[in-house]
Amino acid sequence: MPANEADTRIRLEHLTQRDPFVRWLGAVIDYAAPGAVRLSMCVREEHMNFNGTCHGGVLFSLADTAFGLASNSHGTIAVGVHADVAFCSPVGVGDVIIAEATEASRSKRVGTYPVRISKQDGTTVALFTGTVHRTDKVHPV
Amino acid sequence: MPANEADTRIRLEHLTQRDPFVRWLGAVIDYAAPGAVRLSMCVREEHMNFNGTCHGGVLFSLADTAFGLASNSHGTIAVGVHADVAFCSPVGVGDVIIAEATEASRSKRVGTYPVRISKQDGTTVALFTGTVHRTDKVHPV
Amino acid sequence: MPANEADTRIRLEHLTQRDPFVRWLGAVIDYAAPGAVRLSMCVREEHMNFNGTCHGGVLFSLADTAFGLASNSHGTIAVGVHADVAFCSPVGVGDVIIAEATEASRSKRVGTYPVRISKQDGTTVALFTGTVHRTDKVHPV
Amino acid sequence: MPANEADTRIRLEHLTQRDPFVRWLGAVIDYAAPGAVRLSMCVREEHMNFNGTCHGGVLFSLADTAFGLASNSHGTIAVGVHADVAFCSPVGVGDVIIAEATEASRSKRVGTYPVRISKQDGTTVALFTGTVHRTDKVHPV
Repeated sequence: MPANEADTRIRLEHLTQRDPFVRWLGAVIDYAAPGAVRLSMCVREEHMNFNGTCHGGVLFSLADTAFGLASNSHGTIAVGVHADVAFCSPVGVGDVIIAEATEASRSKRVGTYPVRISKQDGTTVALFTGTVHRTDKVHPV
Repeated sequence: MPANEADTRIRLEHLTQRDPFVRWLGAVIDYAAPGAVRLSMCVREEHMNFNGTCHGGVLFSLADTAFGLASNSHGTIAVGVHADVAFCSPVGVGDVIIAEATEASRSKRVGTYPVRISKQDGTTVALFTGTVHRTDKVHPV
Repeated sequence: MPANEADTRIRLEHLTQRDPFVRWLGAVIDYAAPGAVRLSMCVREEHMNFNGTCHGGVLFSLADTAFGLASNSHGTIAVGVHADVAFCSPVGVGDVIIAEATEASRSKRVGTYPVRISKQDGTTVALFTGTVHRTDKVHPV
Repeated sequence: MPANEADTRIRLEHLTQRDPFVRWLGAVIDYAAPGAVRLSMCVREEHMNFNGTCHGGVLFSLADTAFGLASNSHGTIAVGVHADVAFCSPVGVGDVIIAEATEASRSKRVGTYPVRISKQDGTTVALFTGTVHRTDKVHPV
């Protein structure tokens, strides 16, 4: 993998190790490059809501994590300010879900990141878009 | 409390007992009536993200749970289809956050629920709006 | 009205006079103060969509204008970065609709503004939330 | 073009002829198939906001129209219930903007449609996602 991808991957793995919520979800980084991140996780019993399907908060959290990593992949702190999610099809225990974040735009102070969540058969599970405020602060080591 | 509120409270407590994600958050029901729910939780170390503030997924999940309970409080299953969240101010370990969901509109098939998250000093932490598709199915006992 | 409100009103009236889209909508400022704006308009035949109700784009545009004025009321340019709208109940020709924007939070660089659109009988028509990036540039005179 | 596309195109052209707001925008259908629509328009002086860039309401309206046509392309009335938009880069007078709506999911009662707006040089201008409630009513002829 190119130096840029390898560096990004190492930096983002480092960030997720500081994130207990990501560990609770069981999400892992499948791919990372500047502005682009793919995560996946296996949906477990404790991710279900009271109607017996995967909690919207779990789906949002996976997308939000991919968004957070993609927008923080350039080395300075980016803070989420607004996000939305459309829930497209239900997810059950044992499904593997994949979140792919890309960078639609990035200026000095603002960035926009669409995230698509799909499941193992390719079905779209949710569509998310997140916007960050970009700061000049670098991540603490 | 009026019969209607007492019944709603019992039904929603019952629903949340089936929801392991809500238990992981540590959210409790402070108030429940048809179409209106208030939840609160104490933010813990494991709710932090890699930038040291409360994870956006945790805030969304609290709001989404209040939204889910308010929209399911009428006795039939309502399914979240679209939601959004604006993050207004950061939250740290030890903060108590409160989510208040109300019903802006409800027709036979669609309902809209704004949720405001605030913290102990009254500051607005996040604004959420969720839309459900309302079905005719009753909740399993 | 207090000096602050009078000044804000004058500044925002000045801004809307530069905005041909607002004139096409027929929206007028009912109230303006720092961070808070109320607009109203009468829905006309040309605002209808192909299904015979008021176009979602018209409702969004009214809310977006209230949001734009409220967030630009502090004297420096604020740029909308993300917004969402939930459509709660239909609007027809002859209805008067009112958009009320308030300021949920404002920091040096980011501001969040919920807007509620209602109609003459008080029914909620739409809920909107908009987020701006705040710059240091002052509005050109 | 296949029969299905030709029929869809004719039906959607018919719908837009009933839509005075679309005519005011100056939007035309470049492509239409079941669940997929591409519109374009040229940005004019009267589409500007008070800060001198294209009004967010104009961008939203173009995306909302593509969303409305794509979701109503199957022959029954679909009603928008929730939408969001992230504004990615500014647009000026003379720019040609293109909105492409696709169908991410469609069930008996709910459909989700992402729309990307780009300009003539391919830059992403805005990302929109809209959700409809699908009814059984057919469009009046």
